[in-house]
Formats: sequence, C-alpha cells, structure tokens
Amino acid sequence: MNKDIPVISLQRLPVYLNYLKSLPSDAEYVSSGGIAAALGMGEVLVRKDLAYTSAIGRPRVGYDRQELIAAIEEYLCCDGERSAVLVGAGALGRAILSYGGFKNYGIEIKAAFDSDPDKISREIAGKRVYGISDAAKKIKELAAELAVICVPAQFAQSVADLLISCGVKAILNFAPVLISAPENVVVRHIDVAANLAILSSMI
Amino acid sequence: MNKDIPVISLQRLPVYLNYLKSLPSDAEYVSSGGIAAALGMGEVLVRKDLAYTSAIGRPRVGYDRQELIAAIEEYLCCDGERSAVLVGAGALGRAILSYGGFKNYGIEIKAAFDSDPDKISREIAGKRVYGISDAAKKIKELAAELAVICVPAQFAQSVADLLISCGVKAILNFAPVLISAPENVVVRHIDVAANLAILSSMI
Repeated sequence: MNKDIPVISLQRLPVYLNYLKSLPSDAEYVSSGGIAAALGMGEVLVRKDLAYTSAIGRPRVGYDRQELIAAIEEYLCCDGERSAVLVGAGALGRAILSYGGFKNYGIEIKAAFDSDPDKISREIAGKRVYGISDAAKKIKELAAELAVICVPAQFAQSVADLLISCGVKAILNFAPVLISAPENVVVRHIDVAANLAILSSMI
Repeated sequence: MNKDIPVISLQRLPVYLNYLKSLPSDAEYVSSGGIAAALGMGEVLVRKDLAYTSAIGRPRVGYDRQELIAAIEEYLCCDGERSAVLVGAGALGRAILSYGGFKNYGIEIKAAFDSDPDKISREIAGKRVYGISDAAKKIKELAAELAVICVPAQFAQSVADLLISCGVKAILNFAPVLISAPENVVVRHIDVAANLAILSSMI
C-alpha cells in the first residue's frame, strides 16, 4: 500500500527501473545526476522520487545499481505475487495475455473472461478463457484484486461493476470510455487512439 | 502544432471528448461544473483546459455540447488526416492494426512493417505488412509522420532511429524500454505491465 507517494512519482518508478536494467552489467553505481541526465529530468526530482523507496544513495558514489533495482522492485511489487484477471479476449486481450512482462512486477494474469461461446474454454498463452457468468466464482477463487478490461466501450462500465462486486480493487481499462468506480477502487485508463492523437497534435 | 498547451492539459482533452460523446443525445448544453463533477476534477482546471480550444462557454448556459466536441476534435486533429505506420506485427501490433478508434482523431495506420518473412506481404485488418527494408521508401511515399512501435525491447531503439531517419516526428512506443530521440521528435511510452504494477502498488 503506497498511498503516501504522489501518483506522478509512482508513475516514474517503472521508468527508472527500465533505465537501470538497460545499463551494461558492469555499471555498478549510478548517481541521481546520471539518471536525471539520461532521462532528461531534473536531478532533485529523481532524488525525491527515489527517496520513496528504501534505496540509500551515498555522497559522491551514488546508488548501488542492483540495490536500487531491488528497492524499486520491492516498492512496486509491495506484497509479492498478485493475481490478475482479464475481461475481453479479443485481439487486444489476446495480445495482453501473451505478453510476458507482468511477471517482472510480480503480477500474473491467471484467467480471462469473455461472453463469446467460441472463445470460452479455449486457452490463450496458457490462460483459460471462462464465460463471464463464471467471473464471480473464479475471481474469488483466485483472490484476484487486479483486472484488465479489453471489452468494447459499451460494455466497459457493466464489466467494471461486476469486477468490483467480486472484490477487484484495481482496474486497467483499455476500453475507450471512462469508467466510474467507488473511492476504494483505483482505475487507470489507457486509450491507445487518444495517445496517438495527443502525439499527433504535438508535432 | 499545439506547443503552447501544457502536455498535462492536452492529455485531458481526449478524456473530456469521451465524456461529452457519452452523454445522451438530448444533452444540448454542458457546464464546466458539470464536466468537473462527472470526472472528479476541479472546475477551474476544466475551464482552463477547455480555453485552449476555440469553444466558448456562456455564463449560466455553459458550452453547446456539439460545438465543444467539434472544438476539441479540431484541436486534437489539427491538420486533418494524418498517416501513421506500425512496426512489429506481433500479437499487440495486430491488435492495434485491427483497432478502429484512430479515425475518430483523423489518424489512419496505413502500413505495417516486420522482419519476419512469414508476416511480410500479409494483410492485417486491410493493412499490408512490408519488410522492414521497405520502411524508408514506404514511409516517404505515405508521408507518415506518426509511428507505433510494437517490437521487442532490444529492437526498439534501432527501429526508432530508422523511423526518425525516414521523417517520422512522433512515436508511440509499446516496447518496455525507453527510446531516445532528438528534440524535434516526440515520444510517448505505454508500458502495459508498468501500468498494472502502478495500480497494484496503489491498493
């Protein structure tokens, strides 16, 4: 539970993590100044962000790179292994089920749900697709608190309501529509088209 | 070219747009207070963001909803139709090629590139997949300034370098690695696993 860290700082932790992991293996120490320069950020900001983790930088030496990686990973995967489910096994849902990057953060997508009889009972990347009517039972069984929504816009809110009623506490929403949720549930919205549009309007 | 708007405001424009479009068709007027309440934001912030567009709210009436939608759309698709290309026709790339939401923003993904001979010359959602060696020629032919990168992490930087050398000005990067680019190129990074990890650490 990292409620004390500003979301904007939290969002930068995976960026630091990716950068630190991308360094050559003989890079033993990294300084906040070096990280800041590489990522085009301010040094004070980097130091502030990293201060939320347990890593301790030493004057004139910097951070031990492996220690810093471990500290950020510990911060991001605070409770160790976490179970997630995915709703909507269409093209995007299948791509996300096949994506291996979640385990770096201690997250595993354990099951998928869909309403299409042709998809139910199939396996995608080793994950079973269940009918949406089985969601309540399976989510409780898996104690899944994380969910990814990849359904068409018009179904996103009702799917979110169902997930929340089953105990889901965090939703990553890929449907191009805003989802409303009670205060104790966190929602992040990734709108792929909107992201490209934002870029387009910046050039 | 919207260089005067802060990126953080620009990012909220698609959120307003989705909300405005989700309202029932008989909702003729919307107030900044109404938008703010629906989206859990401050009213002053909403008014400031919308002031970057050409929409004009009237006291005690609010904004004409259709006018406001048109103004945001105009702002986001500032130059009309824009061509994009995609590199990496794997699971995620195919999902993005099949996604219809880009046209709402005046963007069309016109071609895809891959290095896998099995994928080259195939069509995905009506888009032809070309060999990566054809990228320079095709990108110039299409005058594509936008690109989506869906390749594995280790290839992302070299793909980005190639795209930039072909005239691409904006890159949406799905590879789980940071891409460096010259100052006149804008890059947005969507790390699906990191987004889920951030959520996970918030609950």
